[in-house]
Amino acid sequence: MKLADDFYQRIQDRVRARLAEDELDGLIVTVPGDVAYLIGFFYAVTERPVYLWFGRDGSRFALLPELDAEYAAAQGVHADIRTYFEYPGVRTPEQHLADELAKSGTPLARIGVSSALTIGAQAALVDALPSSSFIRTRILSDLRLRKEPEEIELHRQAADVCDEMLGAGRALIEAALRSGGPLPTEGELARAVIGFGTDRMYERYSHVIYTTKLAGGLVYAGPNAARPHGLPSRRRLEIGDTLILSLGAAVGSRFVESERTFVIGEPSAAQRAYFDVALRAQEIGTQAMTVGRTCASVNTECLDVIRDAGLGGYIRHRQGHGIGIAQHEAPWVEDGDPTVLAPGMILSSEPGIYIPGHAGYRISDSVLVTADGPQRLTRYPRTLEENTIA
Amino acid sequence: MKLADDFYQRIQDRVRARLAEDELDGLIVTVPGDVAYLIGFFYAVTERPVYLWFGRDGSRFALLPELDAEYAAAQGVHADIRTYFEYPGVRTPEQHLADELAKSGTPLARIGVSSALTIGAQAALVDALPSSSFIRTRILSDLRLRKEPEEIELHRQAADVCDEMLGAGRALIEAALRSGGPLPTEGELARAVIGFGTDRMYERYSHVIYTTKLAGGLVYAGPNAARPHGLPSRRRLEIGDTLILSLGAAVGSRFVESERTFVIGEPSAAQRAYFDVALRAQEIGTQAMTVGRTCASVNTECLDVIRDAGLGGYIRHRQGHGIGIAQHEAPWVEDGDPTVLAPGMILSSEPGIYIPGHAGYRISDSVLVTADGPQRLTRYPRTLEENTIA
Repeated sequence: MKLADDFYQRIQDRVRARLAEDELDGLIVTVPGDVAYLIGFFYAVTERPVYLWFGRDGSRFALLPELDAEYAAAQGVHADIRTYFEYPGVRTPEQHLADELAKSGTPLARIGVSSALTIGAQAALVDALPSSSFIRTRILSDLRLRKEPEEIELHRQAADVCDEMLGAGRALIEAALRSGGPLPTEGELARAVIGFGTDRMYERYSHVIYTTKLAGGLVYAGPNAARPHGLPSRRRLEIGDTLILSLGAAVGSRFVESERTFVIGEPSAAQRAYFDVALRAQEIGTQAMTVGRTCASVNTECLDVIRDAGLGGYIRHRQGHGIGIAQHEAPWVEDGDPTVLAPGMILSSEPGIYIPGHAGYRISDSVLVTADGPQRLTRYPRTLEENTIA
Repeated sequence: MKLADDFYQRIQDRVRARLAEDELDGLIVTVPGDVAYLIGFFYAVTERPVYLWFGRDGSRFALLPELDAEYAAAQGVHADIRTYFEYPGVRTPEQHLADELAKSGTPLARIGVSSALTIGAQAALVDALPSSSFIRTRILSDLRLRKEPEEIELHRQAADVCDEMLGAGRALIEAALRSGGPLPTEGELARAVIGFGTDRMYERYSHVIYTTKLAGGLVYAGPNAARPHGLPSRRRLEIGDTLILSLGAAVGSRFVESERTFVIGEPSAAQRAYFDVALRAQEIGTQAMTVGRTCASVNTECLDVIRDAGLGGYIRHRQGHGIGIAQHEAPWVEDGDPTVLAPGMILSSEPGIYIPGHAGYRISDSVLVTADGPQRLTRYPRTLEENTIA
C-alpha cells in the first residue's frame, strides 16, 4: 500500500514551486490527509496535533507526539521527525514548533495554513510565532484535486475491494433466501460487508495503513432508505424491500465509493419507475464528467434528469464529490462549485431520489476523469434486472 | 440509547445561564459532539456543516443539509429544524444561517463559538454576519466535563460491552490454542472484537446512534505493541507474545475504553517485571483520581511509579484523558492540565510502558470520579495471573 519515494519527491517539488509563486516562506500542515499526502505518515488521529513544517528553503520536519515517533520512523516518512511529549503539555505543541523553527533559522514572515485549521490552533500558533502572518492557502487542496498515476492505481485496487463487498452483501441475502431463514438486519449486513472488506485488505496487503478507515458502509432498506445518511438500524430486511448498500473502501488511504440499489423479490411498478430514473440520472451524469466542463454544469445536467421526470421533490443532495485521501474532498459536483474538470480528478457520481415512507434509490460510482472521457473505477452491475435479488 | 427530554432541558437551561453570565447573545454550535449533547442529533459527519443556533433569548434552531432533515426529525431532536440544500451551495451554509437569524430578529452582537471551529468556517461566518463579534467560549466543553446521571448510566452500559469485547478476543485466542490451529493475526483479532461489540449493540438497543463509531479497537502484539497507537497489522500472534487489546465502545455516543495486556504462554521474567510496573502505575494512578486533586498531580503521581522503577525512558504518553461523547475530550490527565477533579468526571487511566523491539504494556480503565472516591466502570480482570493465556 506504500507509494514509492518518487511520488513524495514529485509532490514536494510542486509544493515548493507553489510556495515560491505565492511568496510564502513555508506551510504549517496539520490536516491528517495533507500530512499523509505530503510525507506518507498515517496515524491514529487524536487531539494531539501533528505539525509538519515545509519551508520554501528546503527545511522540513514533522513534529509529533512522543507516542507516534517510533511508528512514524517505521513507516519511513519523508521528513525529519521531532517530538513533543504530550497534549496539552506544560509547553504547548505550538511552542515546541516555534522552538524547532527558531533552531532551523528559516524565514517565517508569511506562513501558509489550511482553511481546516481550527481557530484554537491558530490562536496558539499566533501566540507562539508572534512575528509571522498566517495566510489561508489552497496549495495542498489544489494539488490533491488531480491524482497521480500511482494514486489512481490504489483507487483502482480499492474499487475492486468495494465491488467485492457489494457482492458479499448480496450473497448473504441470497443465502438467507435459499435457506428459508430470516433475512439479515441492516446492522448485520453492514457488519458483514465491512468485515469482508477489511479481511480482503489484510489478505492482499502486507502494510495496511489508513487515515480514517479501511472499509465502511451504510446499509438501509425499506422506509429507512429514504434517509440518505441514516445509520444502519436493527430493522430486518423483508421481501419487497428496496435496499441501498452504500459502501466505501480505501487502499493506501485512497478511497472509492461503490453504492448500489437492490430490490428483494419481484419489483413493483413503483420500484421499477423510481429505479429507472435513478439509473438514468446516474448514467447521464456520469457521461457528463468530461474534461473542460464545470462541476456545476455536470450536476445540473444530472439532476435535471430527475426533475424532468417529475421527481424533483425527491432530490435530497447533489450529484457527487471529489474522492481521494479523504472520502469526501474537493471538488464538489454541485451548483456552487465552478471547478473545471481535468484529467486525474476522481469524482463520485451518485444522484439519488428519496421517497419518504417508501424508500430511496441511489447508484454511485467513483469516476476517473480522463482525456478520453469518464472512466468508472467501480464496476459492479447497476441495472434493476441484475440487482433484483430473488 | 436515547436520553429523556428532561436531560436536554437541563443542559439547555445551564447553557442559557452561562450565556447570561458571559454576556453572550448566543452560541453557534457546529462540533458534532456538541450538537449531539445539546439537542440529541446524531449524524454521519461530512463537509456539510450543521449549524445550531442557541440564543440567550430562547431562540433556537438547527440548520441542516437537506439530506439529514428527515433523519433529524425521526430522531426527535430538541430544536427546530431549518435546511439548506447542499454544500458548497450557490449561497453558502453560513449565508443561509444569517438569513434564518435575520428572520428571527434575535440580538447577535456577541456570539460564542468553540475553539474547534475551523478558520475557513469562521471567515465564512464573519462574511455572512459582519456586525457580529465571534468569541471563543468554553461553555459547552466546561459543561461536558461533568457527566449527568443519565449519561453515566450509558457509560456503564458501554463498559459492559467493552469488557465483553475483551473476553471475546481472549476466547478467540484460546480456541486457536486448544485446536492447535494458527493463532489469529492482529487484523483478524481487531475485526472479530469490533464485530462482536457491534453485534452486542444491535442486540441490546433498538435505536442505535453514534457520533463516530459504536465499537473500535487497536490490537498489537510482540514488537508492534511497543508503538502505542500503531494500526493493527497482519502479523500473526505467537506463543510468547505480549498482546495489548485497546478497545473502545459507546452507547448513545457515551464512550469508554477498556484496555488490557495479555501474555500468550508462560510469561518470561522480563514480561513479569514490565507487567508488574504497568499494573502498579495503573492502580496507584487510578486511586489518585479523587475529588479536589488536579489532573497534573494525579498524572505525576502515576508516572512517578514508572520513573521510580527505573523505566522512565519507556514512557511515551500521559496517564489519561477525559472520555464522554468524544472518545478523547477534556480534561487531560497530564502535567499541563490544572483542572481540579470533580464528581461526575470520567477519565481514562492508562499509563503505559513501551520497550522498543520487545513490546508494550498498558492497562486502561474508564474511571468515574465520585465523592466517595474513584470508581472503575470497566471491570475486566487486570492481573498477569488472570491475563496469561495458556
